[in-house]
Amino acid sequence: MALRGSLLRFLKRQMDSVQQCRKLGQSVAVVGAPFSRGQKRRGVEHGPRVIRAAGLEERLSNMGCNVCDYGDLSFTHLNIDETYKGVHFPRTVGLANKVLADTVSRAVGSGNTCVMLGGDHSLAIGSVQGHSQHCPDLCLIWVDAHADINTPLTSPSGNLHGQSVAFLLKDLQNKIPELPGFSWVTPCLSASDIVYIGLRDVDPGEHGILKNCGIKFFSMRDIDHFGIQRVMELTFDHLLDRKQRPIHLSFDIDAFDPSLAPATGTPVIGGLTYREGIYITEEIHNTGLLSAMDLVEVNPMLGVSQEAVGSTASLAVDVIASSLGQTREGAHVSFDKLPPSNTTYEAEDEQKVCL
Amino acid sequence: MALRGSLLRFLKRQMDSVQQCRKLGQSVAVVGAPFSRGQKRRGVEHGPRVIRAAGLEERLSNMGCNVCDYGDLSFTHLNIDETYKGVHFPRTVGLANKVLADTVSRAVGSGNTCVMLGGDHSLAIGSVQGHSQHCPDLCLIWVDAHADINTPLTSPSGNLHGQSVAFLLKDLQNKIPELPGFSWVTPCLSASDIVYIGLRDVDPGEHGILKNCGIKFFSMRDIDHFGIQRVMELTFDHLLDRKQRPIHLSFDIDAFDPSLAPATGTPVIGGLTYREGIYITEEIHNTGLLSAMDLVEVNPMLGVSQEAVGSTASLAVDVIASSLGQTREGAHVSFDKLPPSNTTYEAEDEQKVCL
Amino acid sequence: MALRGSLLRFLKRQMDSVQQCRKLGQSVAVVGAPFSRGQKRRGVEHGPRVIRAAGLEERLSNMGCNVCDYGDLSFTHLNIDETYKGVHFPRTVGLANKVLADTVSRAVGSGNTCVMLGGDHSLAIGSVQGHSQHCPDLCLIWVDAHADINTPLTSPSGNLHGQSVAFLLKDLQNKIPELPGFSWVTPCLSASDIVYIGLRDVDPGEHGILKNCGIKFFSMRDIDHFGIQRVMELTFDHLLDRKQRPIHLSFDIDAFDPSLAPATGTPVIGGLTYREGIYITEEIHNTGLLSAMDLVEVNPMLGVSQEAVGSTASLAVDVIASSLGQTREGAHVSFDKLPPSNTTYEAEDEQKVCL
Repeated sequence: MALRGSLLRFLKRQMDSVQQCRKLGQSVAVVGAPFSRGQKRRGVEHGPRVIRAAGLEERLSNMGCNVCDYGDLSFTHLNIDETYKGVHFPRTVGLANKVLADTVSRAVGSGNTCVMLGGDHSLAIGSVQGHSQHCPDLCLIWVDAHADINTPLTSPSGNLHGQSVAFLLKDLQNKIPELPGFSWVTPCLSASDIVYIGLRDVDPGEHGILKNCGIKFFSMRDIDHFGIQRVMELTFDHLLDRKQRPIHLSFDIDAFDPSLAPATGTPVIGGLTYREGIYITEEIHNTGLLSAMDLVEVNPMLGVSQEAVGSTASLAVDVIASSLGQTREGAHVSFDKLPPSNTTYEAEDEQKVCL
Repeated sequence: MALRGSLLRFLKRQMDSVQQCRKLGQSVAVVGAPFSRGQKRRGVEHGPRVIRAAGLEERLSNMGCNVCDYGDLSFTHLNIDETYKGVHFPRTVGLANKVLADTVSRAVGSGNTCVMLGGDHSLAIGSVQGHSQHCPDLCLIWVDAHADINTPLTSPSGNLHGQSVAFLLKDLQNKIPELPGFSWVTPCLSASDIVYIGLRDVDPGEHGILKNCGIKFFSMRDIDHFGIQRVMELTFDHLLDRKQRPIHLSFDIDAFDPSLAPATGTPVIGGLTYREGIYITEEIHNTGLLSAMDLVEVNPMLGVSQEAVGSTASLAVDVIASSLGQTREGAHVSFDKLPPSNTTYEAEDEQKVCL
Repeated sequence: MALRGSLLRFLKRQMDSVQQCRKLGQSVAVVGAPFSRGQKRRGVEHGPRVIRAAGLEERLSNMGCNVCDYGDLSFTHLNIDETYKGVHFPRTVGLANKVLADTVSRAVGSGNTCVMLGGDHSLAIGSVQGHSQHCPDLCLIWVDAHADINTPLTSPSGNLHGQSVAFLLKDLQNKIPELPGFSWVTPCLSASDIVYIGLRDVDPGEHGILKNCGIKFFSMRDIDHFGIQRVMELTFDHLLDRKQRPIHLSFDIDAFDPSLAPATGTPVIGGLTYREGIYITEEIHNTGLLSAMDLVEVNPMLGVSQEAVGSTASLAVDVIASSLGQTREGAHVSFDKLPPSNTTYEAEDEQKVCL
């Protein structure tokens, strides 16, 4: 009977509203990017809609995050955008990523952790570029079944969602033809700034690039070999050993096993378990260095049922929430972190103005 | 051709009947507890029926256990049982647990390993209380997605199946209001007597209690981090390091992933695999210290299909059988453990009198 | 822009065709064995057909293997084949295995890695016997839910697919009655030449044999305990520590969890994950010692849907491809391994003559 009356009610209310967010009042910018021209299948432009519908913002708010919703970006689909050196829609993809880069830059610059909802994975070009404008020393963790590191010259498909990393890499600068629409892109990463997790469908050209550039990657085989705990240790050893720096997490939902994330364009058997995916994001959160993230390739038109779409979208929400501090062991507020008694909760709600 | 004729037939018969039970003639009391008032969803009172229908007793008998079936207990649902301090059905839950405690006490006192079939997890109050009457130094392994350690004052729902552990804990004695129907309950465990395995949905109030009391728990994250083998080592280090003592295993079927145990009331994604659940119970069996166990929260009315109910109930049988000595590598009888030649098998069947 | 023009096209073409095969021009003999009399369920004789239909040979060709298809063997089903000492179809099984042994012997003798497509697991008798004629020092890795090591005298069912290993073992020679149809079989393995992986349904008689003979096995519990990476290390320590020698891999699809391989005759819950199965075969490939393999017990008549059959057959293809060098991290050709510029690719296709 130690806790009673008004203090108890106050505590319970706090615990309910704060739940598992460690940083009270963490500001999160949500940027929807309904874009699909980095590949050929329709539907991935509806990704932001279904991820929102699965309860993203309510979840983040319940965790105590201040959510600034930047809405869904409006992208121009150019009428004339001929395939160039085998690459499809170069001008449309380049322009969309420019718009996205500007928004991400603004969101990060305003002090938010930026969450970009794709759309296809070509959007990582703009997201990382925008992020790097404010955080030039960022490092990149790319969780994906695919390496997305083909150059226009090695790509078997010509789809830009399989080439994003190549455009970001300084090491490949002289291997990439100048594409129309891409003149604004400046490679901002070195090979040593990247770690891949989850690879299991790598083109021969990509494998050559990974090996020649000495890029660190953990394929599904490596996860089987080391276990996910050790993989994360090795990831941070590689990226953060010399100095702490901002992390950009680019999470392709197809990193998960297709049984968990069926509504996606290029599923590959033998992927991450739910628990591995959440462990990865918990560990990234625990560094305290996550600065921006992408959640891409949720395609509701490719789910065979509403249930398949719903579970894929829910999984996306879990990944984002876990990246931002939701924990499985739970959390509670201790007294010294409680807001002062004169806090006005209604006013706090009104504070969510996007800068 | 070394083994032939009557000896061979004797051996084959033995191997068939004994199968994988290590202790020949281990006595097991099965106590059905068809009770659902510790929560609000109907159907969990049918748990004992479907677990029996999934072949529990035949399995245990084939393993060589002497099964004493105590039948299903008859519980009184009080007509007048008003919510008290937010807690629902306190008198009905208290009374049912008193009946259960008496039965478990009798079963354990007669030399049986007691298997309680729930019913909801509020029944652990009676099961552990009854067990502790004969084994006051017991320790508790609680395998569950939830901590079930809310007090009436922290519980968001007021359901007693989420508060069972709080009533058993000496450490929380002065935090719990006197509930009608609970006067007979005496907290019998210290915080250090408990280990949780499988947590992934813990209320803020519960998290505070776990941390403040210093209770050992392994969330799903911890299982991902350490691996299940190490988790079991750490569990036994914590509970049995100073002395060997009886183990009470309280196993909530929702510890498993919902894909394996769909027919339950509060499923949470990201649970134990089949193999982890069986590994846990194999390890507990291998201590030789299991004295009583609960298998709770199988709710056949919540399965979307007969198949979903059947697989959940089969899983429950596997957990119980594994706890009692069924192994995956198999087993055989060695000569020195064979019963003498004058054993009458038919008579042995008749011996199954419940004391 | 370093790589351009004809060299680039040459490289891309190479990378496409070679993909992930490490040994350019590895010769693989595919032997279909449509046979089902080692057990009682019909349909497993269609295994070779559905595994081929799932794209086996195209996959192997794309990996750069020279595939010699030996077609499907034609087996005689004897009209008069009475059960002998409880063993069903001894003469038919014995004869079929003699035919298979001759073919495997010829395939291995011609320098091929031999891939036998079952059919039921009694075929391992002929496959291992034929293999051992050219490689008398072979060792055997048996991946299976079952030990298949009953003797005719311990077998509960009398099905020969549950007795294959017993006929191959020198240590059991004096425990096995002479079966009609088996006079040609000479036990060719010692107990120390075998490692089992994946056991979880072992008869008491089998367990006695495993223990008495001191055969190394890793049950699913052992995999849970050690992890698959350590299990493979221990496997190779056991088999290859003293000397490098040819490996015979006998892979029963029921080693996998039934959720992955539903179309099989004796599924057992709690099996290998997809990733564990592929890790096992990757590791075996990486020894460079795989000389022959069996892929057995795919039974399309036992799948509840076309999808269930298709996924089981695809899994079989993945296991075989991975055993022969397909990797998850991908692969690429380095310059020094490229064929000379005067290679005629069309001619190479024509070279696939089975010796």
